[in-house]
Amino acid sequence: MTKICSLGIEDYISKLTKFHGNFAPGLLIGGYMVDIASRNMTQYEFFDAICESSSCLPDAIQMLTPCTVGNGWLKIVDTGRFAISFYEKKSGEGVRVFLDASKLENYPEIKNWFLRLKTKQEQDKDALVREIISAGDKIYSMMNIVVSPKYRGKHAHSSIGICGSCGEAFPEIDGKICRACQGASIYQETRPHMF
Amino acid sequence: MTKICSLGIEDYISKLTKFHGNFAPGLLIGGYMVDIASRNMTQYEFFDAICESSSCLPDAIQMLTPCTVGNGWLKIVDTGRFAISFYEKKSGEGVRVFLDASKLENYPEIKNWFLRLKTKQEQDKDALVREIISAGDKIYSMMNIVVSPKYRGKHAHSSIGICGSCGEAFPEIDGKICRACQGASIYQETRPHMF
Repeated sequence: MTKICSLGIEDYISKLTKFHGNFAPGLLIGGYMVDIASRNMTQYEFFDAICESSSCLPDAIQMLTPCTVGNGWLKIVDTGRFAISFYEKKSGEGVRVFLDASKLENYPEIKNWFLRLKTKQEQDKDALVREIISAGDKIYSMMNIVVSPKYRGKHAHSSIGICGSCGEAFPEIDGKICRACQGASIYQETRPHMF
Repeated sequence: MTKICSLGIEDYISKLTKFHGNFAPGLLIGGYMVDIASRNMTQYEFFDAICESSSCLPDAIQMLTPCTVGNGWLKIVDTGRFAISFYEKKSGEGVRVFLDASKLENYPEIKNWFLRLKTKQEQDKDALVREIISAGDKIYSMMNIVVSPKYRGKHAHSSIGICGSCGEAFPEIDGKICRACQGASIYQETRPHMF
């Protein structure tokens, strides 16, 4: 594997570093995972994506496929596992690719990083990158899946109302007041509206 | 307002369309919101972001700021409201900008779109885009906020274990088995692992 989704490894690293703000090993690994999953979805014109980690992987998917969080084709279902699934929207059929902890015996730096056996400071980052590249697709596993119906849809569409509590527009499907006023206290206002 | 975060409106629309896969009015509005919030955060070298809708807005933030879902500087706390917050990571101090339903009387197409008073087919998309551009920053409101501590942190760090049920690596903070095996049935496997 000398390419990730038609990009040379160096080009991919530079693209991701720009988007993500810094280089992270998980992004390089994510690139290989996206490449493997994509190559196994060529029978479909389009696919949607699910990412099981909110760390790194969403950015690999967003840069390498048309799926983004904002267009609804990428969903994050955070199980804490380092896995992505690509699937056909209607049938749910697709593939799931994950970094396989049982395949890391010959890749000590990847194992140290993935299982957090060493601190960031103790890790040899250059050796880690070399191992990821030399491992190619040997450290991943793939399964054929059907995504459950409840995860397949796009954003739910609801009529829009004005929240009786905060006065902002919200999906009426959530109730009489918006979800924020129902209890998610994300912030405190410190001064009256500026405009 | 003839620019969105230093990009000409046309350049911004073309950049967003490429990233998001298609043009959406919410993305253009999101661009103005990011621009307003950014201009009010210049006293900070860096900021984190919270987005209260998973639709459109995350992509505006990801394209126009260093904050992405994958690097953890953008969090989505889906209250269903069309609002973004930028804040200084440590203190939580920042601003929240939202499309203000009470300011739309002179902008009928924006109102129709935002409150879903007309179907997509009934909307006049060109008129809508013209109204968004001519409205500039007149349809938004901004508040000064302090983000609650529980929403400020990055991804939680935990030691990593191997799930006794699926055999995949997961954050041990979640328990003896991973969150997926605890009940999130995202998919069914249809054939044994391919590799």
